[in-house]
Amino acid sequence: MSAQPEFNLDIAEYMQSVGEAGRVASQAVAASTTAQRNNALLAMADAIEQQQEKLKTENAKDLEAGRARGLADAMLDRLELTDERISGMAEGLRQIVALPDPVGEITDMSYRPSGIQVGKMRVPLGVIGIIYESRPNVTADAAGLCLKSGNACILRGGSEAIHSNQAIAKCIQSGLELAGLPAEAIQVIKTTDRAAVGELLTMEKYVDVIIPRGGKGLIERISRESKIPVIKHLDGICHVYIDDKADFDKAVNIAVNAKTHRYGVCNAMETLLVAEGIAEKVLPELRKQYDAKNVELRGCEKTQKILTGINAATDEDWDTEYLAPILSIKVVENMAEGIQHITDHSSQHTDTIVTEDYTRARRFLREVDSSSVMVNASTRFSDGFEYGLGAEIGISTDKLHARGPVGLEGLTSVKYVVFGDGHIRE
Amino acid sequence: MSAQPEFNLDIAEYMQSVGEAGRVASQAVAASTTAQRNNALLAMADAIEQQQEKLKTENAKDLEAGRARGLADAMLDRLELTDERISGMAEGLRQIVALPDPVGEITDMSYRPSGIQVGKMRVPLGVIGIIYESRPNVTADAAGLCLKSGNACILRGGSEAIHSNQAIAKCIQSGLELAGLPAEAIQVIKTTDRAAVGELLTMEKYVDVIIPRGGKGLIERISRESKIPVIKHLDGICHVYIDDKADFDKAVNIAVNAKTHRYGVCNAMETLLVAEGIAEKVLPELRKQYDAKNVELRGCEKTQKILTGINAATDEDWDTEYLAPILSIKVVENMAEGIQHITDHSSQHTDTIVTEDYTRARRFLREVDSSSVMVNASTRFSDGFEYGLGAEIGISTDKLHARGPVGLEGLTSVKYVVFGDGHIRE
Repeated sequence: MSAQPEFNLDIAEYMQSVGEAGRVASQAVAASTTAQRNNALLAMADAIEQQQEKLKTENAKDLEAGRARGLADAMLDRLELTDERISGMAEGLRQIVALPDPVGEITDMSYRPSGIQVGKMRVPLGVIGIIYESRPNVTADAAGLCLKSGNACILRGGSEAIHSNQAIAKCIQSGLELAGLPAEAIQVIKTTDRAAVGELLTMEKYVDVIIPRGGKGLIERISRESKIPVIKHLDGICHVYIDDKADFDKAVNIAVNAKTHRYGVCNAMETLLVAEGIAEKVLPELRKQYDAKNVELRGCEKTQKILTGINAATDEDWDTEYLAPILSIKVVENMAEGIQHITDHSSQHTDTIVTEDYTRARRFLREVDSSSVMVNASTRFSDGFEYGLGAEIGISTDKLHARGPVGLEGLTSVKYVVFGDGHIRE
Repeated sequence: MSAQPEFNLDIAEYMQSVGEAGRVASQAVAASTTAQRNNALLAMADAIEQQQEKLKTENAKDLEAGRARGLADAMLDRLELTDERISGMAEGLRQIVALPDPVGEITDMSYRPSGIQVGKMRVPLGVIGIIYESRPNVTADAAGLCLKSGNACILRGGSEAIHSNQAIAKCIQSGLELAGLPAEAIQVIKTTDRAAVGELLTMEKYVDVIIPRGGKGLIERISRESKIPVIKHLDGICHVYIDDKADFDKAVNIAVNAKTHRYGVCNAMETLLVAEGIAEKVLPELRKQYDAKNVELRGCEKTQKILTGINAATDEDWDTEYLAPILSIKVVENMAEGIQHITDHSSQHTDTIVTEDYTRARRFLREVDSSSVMVNASTRFSDGFEYGLGAEIGISTDKLHARGPVGLEGLTSVKYVVFGDGHIRE
């Protein structure tokens, strides 16, 4: 069994044809009705359920090839399409149907002194290129969000999931056709050749934005190579700052939840900052709770004096996204030092202050320059579903265009619309 | 007299120090109050008026050097700082004071089922790099908009305006200092060496966005070289489509105004599309009016049959921004062909339909993918002041981040703010 289905085309020519077809299809999608796009999503969900056995057969090829190549168990687990995950894909598409259609929404309509009426209309971006790693269910999620927001998309999944992704692609395309939309509205690259990614990243004529989903290495490489704007999420080095005016219970609950609710996620806390005035009170209780969950603590000198016996945090620790039960702790003199540490070391993802002080809360909110800034809430809330966006394609740590959780709105742009009655400029 | 003031520093080192200082200053500007920024703008305006003679002396050096280098009269005219233009700069800064402060505005605040309260806060982008050509008054305009929106900026003007720009910079910096803001919040590059631009475009650590203002050549070069996101405005190939259901008078007025109100501007019409059903009626009247203003007409075959004797439009004409009294005219079968022509040739700046047909107006608005789409109004309205943005730093033909006229809001981003009372994720 081959790790890749047969593919005999010239990569550059193939990618050009994918790009051209995507651009053409994007016009049909942009002009389609809400009902058409919803019907396609429902038909895609149905097809995925109907093809459950076929999906599992194709997925088995990927799993076998993966095992033969010696993929780690965690990787194989991510790759596997279980019955539950297949239902989950279908369910995810149906949930997207239930979200309001962002396309064509007109806002801020007002008359100007000249007599023209000006507003903004929300419009699709056009063609979105998404590059992701092993999980095949991303294929359905990403396709659904792009379609709902009126975009065509070109998806490039992990090479280890090629058979699974192609099988999912067939379900998606049959759904599109049933709803009268072009199958090229959602294309899944048929080759695992890395040269295809290189082509995709330079097809500025056909692709409007690139969204990479995966590890930091993948995202950095793509950002470096891409000639097309990238909506990126680099890493999540999130902080909780416990102010000396914090409520003790809130501080402990938030610091424990932000670190231990889940370890491998970008909105988990990686560094805890504690004001000197409350450190001796709050740190021993936190140590107790972290010990119970086997979280390794690494502290600055002042922390080590209070929590004797823990390891020292090195300079590197302050810039590390552990994604693991490890926490670095720093005792700071006051909020100003805490904010300065966040400015120097945060990845501008999510940072929280715990305080009962009104003025400090306002200052923290204003001065911390991260995609989410919180008061008395766990960093774990930084998430498209928790924010009410309905779904998310990723979390952007960029400042331009989309910032924070990127939902349907982040996959759209706006244009100005102007209504006149023969108005001319004098 | 030298064309450049003395400058003996290493360019790379100098630019690094400018970048670092800009980043530090940006924090102070972001944290400053509305009143502080407004006071700085007023003090800048006063300083410019007080230094009128000094500005003219320095400007004279640039003019003399320009004449010695054989600059064209039009270029010298753009370079000149007259009393009127100096007052205009001061007045422009005072108008920016009157605009509402976008920084810190919180919108979309709502409670989520989890109990957290989520909203969005408008925040500055950070450090904005602006690269522009000859007019020295851009220095004051750009500085004012960046400061009002809470950003630091690094300005690189045309080398031919170096003395004028440095003199304006002194006024700006004295204004900042009077208001208690760091002088490095607005830096004007002190060297005319082109290597400085190369450095600026690669200082991703210190600069958040680049805005080029100038000709297409400048903007293309900067977009190609920049490692930093660019908000760009390439060109304005704007269309008016006269539908066969158009009102005759509105059609003529709009087509004449869009072409002849001003020629050298990006929102002037460059191609007129006319539906077959109304062409014989409307084109002869238009010819009369264009002839009276010495507008050269170039037509497709069908147009040439109606307007005998005019030149043929070549393929190149449909993709040309004339910025001159020249107009290409194409007769199309119907709106679908008109939209297709726009899709193929528009620079996605501004396109207008003239029609009394409700359904066609709706379809044109939805399907034309340009930064401004209009019904029964002249393309000349596509402008920050006309749209009520108060001022504009440029018009973006990009789709990501800012699209259309870019005012204060386009110089900002948003972050999510979350309020809890000790909320943790279950």
